[in-house]
Amino acid sequence: MKAAIGKSPGLAVVLVGQRRDSKPYINIKLRACDEVGIATMVEELPESCTESELLDVVSRFNEDPSVHGIIVQLPLPQHLDEEKIMTVVSPEKDVDGFHPLNMGNLALRGRQPFFIPCAPKGCIELLLRFGVQISGKRSVVIGRSKIVGLPTALLLQRHHATVSTVHSFTKNPEQITSQADVIVSDVGIPNLVRGNWLKPGSVVIDMGTNLVKDTSSRHGFRVTGDVCYEEAIKVVSAITPVPGGVGPVTISMLLSNTLDSAKRAFRFT
Amino acid sequence: MKAAIGKSPGLAVVLVGQRRDSKPYINIKLRACDEVGIATMVEELPESCTESELLDVVSRFNEDPSVHGIIVQLPLPQHLDEEKIMTVVSPEKDVDGFHPLNMGNLALRGRQPFFIPCAPKGCIELLLRFGVQISGKRSVVIGRSKIVGLPTALLLQRHHATVSTVHSFTKNPEQITSQADVIVSDVGIPNLVRGNWLKPGSVVIDMGTNLVKDTSSRHGFRVTGDVCYEEAIKVVSAITPVPGGVGPVTISMLLSNTLDSAKRAFRFT
Repeated sequence: MKAAIGKSPGLAVVLVGQRRDSKPYINIKLRACDEVGIATMVEELPESCTESELLDVVSRFNEDPSVHGIIVQLPLPQHLDEEKIMTVVSPEKDVDGFHPLNMGNLALRGRQPFFIPCAPKGCIELLLRFGVQISGKRSVVIGRSKIVGLPTALLLQRHHATVSTVHSFTKNPEQITSQADVIVSDVGIPNLVRGNWLKPGSVVIDMGTNLVKDTSSRHGFRVTGDVCYEEAIKVVSAITPVPGGVGPVTISMLLSNTLDSAKRAFRFT
Repeated sequence: MKAAIGKSPGLAVVLVGQRRDSKPYINIKLRACDEVGIATMVEELPESCTESELLDVVSRFNEDPSVHGIIVQLPLPQHLDEEKIMTVVSPEKDVDGFHPLNMGNLALRGRQPFFIPCAPKGCIELLLRFGVQISGKRSVVIGRSKIVGLPTALLLQRHHATVSTVHSFTKNPEQITSQADVIVSDVGIPNLVRGNWLKPGSVVIDMGTNLVKDTSSRHGFRVTGDVCYEEAIKVVSAITPVPGGVGPVTISMLLSNTLDSAKRAFRFT
């Protein structure tokens, strides 16, 4: 794009406070942008910032024509109204796809959101690239977060899967998951999904990212998913590992959303 | 409200063309408004009207402070872009709850849409009033229309049900419905749901409205739902009949949405 029209896509990242666990995610995103030629702007605000200070920053990026994507890193400190702030991000720059207008357009067949949330989009991309049939298949999404579970369920349904969502109120979730051809988990509980939760030959996408203690590791912990990989691998036909599975694809989808937004802004096709 | 502040809620109905099957619905809505003191305005446009003529009418109602709810009767003639027109209805007057912003806010827990679509709202209202537990229960929605199926599934999930949606791509839907405690159907196929599709003791909400030939009837046809009532009644603990079940409740929800909108506009609590 830069070579063709002399312009680059731009991604703005808004960080509030110094959450230790957010930093690695942000750094991975920034590095990935750098590698593919997306300009990045990072605005760091102190933990104590007011809502109006944060809204001012978001509004400025909304109006800045060099910015095509805006990420407000979640979670925000308690005193800030996350829902309100996400609504102020322009739907046309909402590369995370969390704005209710984008979510509504994702839910409604026949409509197109400006952006699909990155992790769910990555999940479907993986299934499609590996030739996994989605249409007409039983699929279960474990977890109903607005970031992953909900949009993944909506997106699977758009691809004509028969979707069930199980969550913390569900009794005997294994009865439902064991009937599914495609299982997506994002609940943040290590080893929740055991081998006997899964149908032989099914496909599992593990979106969980959990830190568990591991004295044998240099850091004292290791990253694991929601699925007991050792048991699952004996039952399923395919499974994404954690780490290394959906994570990198999710980052690619962020780059893809930002590029799409820039193309739209510059009317570059 | 009229007695207290001298003002009435107002509902505007936009009709395009002369669809024979839309007329009875409209008349029921208008009569119900009349009975409870909601002022109604009906704008009829010819089948051949242009998109911009229709959009002008909607925009005028958006700006009219005496109008608190706007209904554009669906379906619209083929040459009009239904999705575009629904997006132009102000979300704050969208008493049908079909605007993508309202649908997104319905999907996202922690957010509140201005309006919940009337039929799904009526469905939940019925379940709650009859003391049917929703939270933690297996529920199946048959059909995924944006008017009924989709928002009903989203709403059941908001009430912490474990929700599965089955649709035309689903193989052996009876395997899924027969595990459900609560079944909602809205597909428009008479007698689709048979007795053996249902779990003993379950609760069935039949949202289907189908005209079937009946030579013994004065009109030559009768109205029936999606569920084979005679078989279902022997299996389930409760079922809504068609006609007379969800229909009247849906109309009440339209009145309730319009009243809520007027209260919000007049800051009347």
